[in-house]
Amino acid sequence: MNILIVYAHPEPHSLNGVLKNFAVQHLEKNGHRVQISDLYAMKWKSELDARDFPAYDSSTTLNPVAESKRAFAEGSQTVDVVAEQEKLIWADAVIFQFPLWWFSMPAILKGWFDRVYAYGLAYGVGEHSDTHWGDRYGEGSFAGKRAMLSITTGGWESHYSARGINGPINDLLFPIQHGALFYPGFDVLPPFVLYRVDRINETNLNATLSAFATRLDGLFFDAPIAFRRQNFGDYNIPALTLKDNVETENLGGFSLHLQKQSG
Amino acid sequence: MNILIVYAHPEPHSLNGVLKNFAVQHLEKNGHRVQISDLYAMKWKSELDARDFPAYDSSTTLNPVAESKRAFAEGSQTVDVVAEQEKLIWADAVIFQFPLWWFSMPAILKGWFDRVYAYGLAYGVGEHSDTHWGDRYGEGSFAGKRAMLSITTGGWESHYSARGINGPINDLLFPIQHGALFYPGFDVLPPFVLYRVDRINETNLNATLSAFATRLDGLFFDAPIAFRRQNFGDYNIPALTLKDNVETENLGGFSLHLQKQSG
Repeated sequence: MNILIVYAHPEPHSLNGVLKNFAVQHLEKNGHRVQISDLYAMKWKSELDARDFPAYDSSTTLNPVAESKRAFAEGSQTVDVVAEQEKLIWADAVIFQFPLWWFSMPAILKGWFDRVYAYGLAYGVGEHSDTHWGDRYGEGSFAGKRAMLSITTGGWESHYSARGINGPINDLLFPIQHGALFYPGFDVLPPFVLYRVDRINETNLNATLSAFATRLDGLFFDAPIAFRRQNFGDYNIPALTLKDNVETENLGGFSLHLQKQSG
Repeated sequence: MNILIVYAHPEPHSLNGVLKNFAVQHLEKNGHRVQISDLYAMKWKSELDARDFPAYDSSTTLNPVAESKRAFAEGSQTVDVVAEQEKLIWADAVIFQFPLWWFSMPAILKGWFDRVYAYGLAYGVGEHSDTHWGDRYGEGSFAGKRAMLSITTGGWESHYSARGINGPINDLLFPIQHGALFYPGFDVLPPFVLYRVDRINETNLNATLSAFATRLDGLFFDAPIAFRRQNFGDYNIPALTLKDNVETENLGGFSLHLQKQSG
């Protein structure tokens, strides 16, 4: 199968770099084809701006959504963006390898999503009607492909547990996993997360890589996160709220970490 | 009072630009002093990398955390980062004005956090003991200051409601509001969110600005989000999980949007 690794760390000898290199070797050894987007090495441009739209008339007000739509439709995108889009279309699975900085992606990776995810490719896809609100959240350009986050953090696993102070890791990753991966159609695998990475050294690295190998081996077999699909009956359209008869008990949210108001 | 506006949009005439300009005028009219970090206009460098650490020995492996700690302690940070830190220290309140792109900040703003939030300033602050795990989550360098997100999105308010498909807006913003603002000590006000911004035009702009003015007038009076503080009894230390007797009913999380497994 075809696998794209989008990698964002400034130091090739970092743990993230080791994991990226290991993934390439392990996947190729097992017969897969691998491409890498090494964003720092590529000197990826992080900022979405007017330079992304060569056909933009700079005497007018820049509307990033409208310009993205036009550039994608007319084929006037920049070459770096087109190259990444072609890798995405080529890939059967995408692995994102990065350190968790301030509970999200490094800026350079956020800029990859901001710029590569064009209108017409990642959003603004499909018809809108009373039963179907665009091809998104389970449908879309990347339907049939798989995606997995592989991340490192200095924090402890308990800090990211169901009652941990940072918030549960899967909730913290919801804007990425649900909002940026499931949205354009990816099936999203549970993340591979390494905690307390300052404790990972040459002595115990093999155990870490062994665990990662297991996840790589399951890339096309493990069950994805069971996010609800938008257009298959669970949601009111166009309000896009869960129907009253769906999930009546769980209130959800991060209110666990909110103090109760006294009085 | 002193107010810093960190603003991230590539188009000065965008709605975000209008809101930024309005905030400056309104706050100054009311006697406040305002500084602006217009990240696109400043050509802010988004990517945290070795160039951020002029004292870094490039023959060694770059450890961003260790280099950040050293650069902040030794005064060897870059001038652009120091300037932003001085603005933060000067400010009594910080407003972040940006469009919600893929359910998070534009990359250039994420890069502001990645680079300005040095070890020793925003994290790695305070003592670690059996009752106190660093000055964070309610304590820290920015304690006593206020922060507020002011964001725009094309989506509908219902899509971001408690049962909306995108996830509740305050949960989507949790990694920022709790993880990047409450963490180093800010009191975080509820966000000012504009939905369906394609519907905002000259006819109804005044109503929008009026609502924004109300929030600006409440910047030092409105109640902040009641996040639990870390070192005041609710959490086990060092596991940093909520104690068993705290919040026993609400399971929290985004499981509302997970399908139930059959069988």
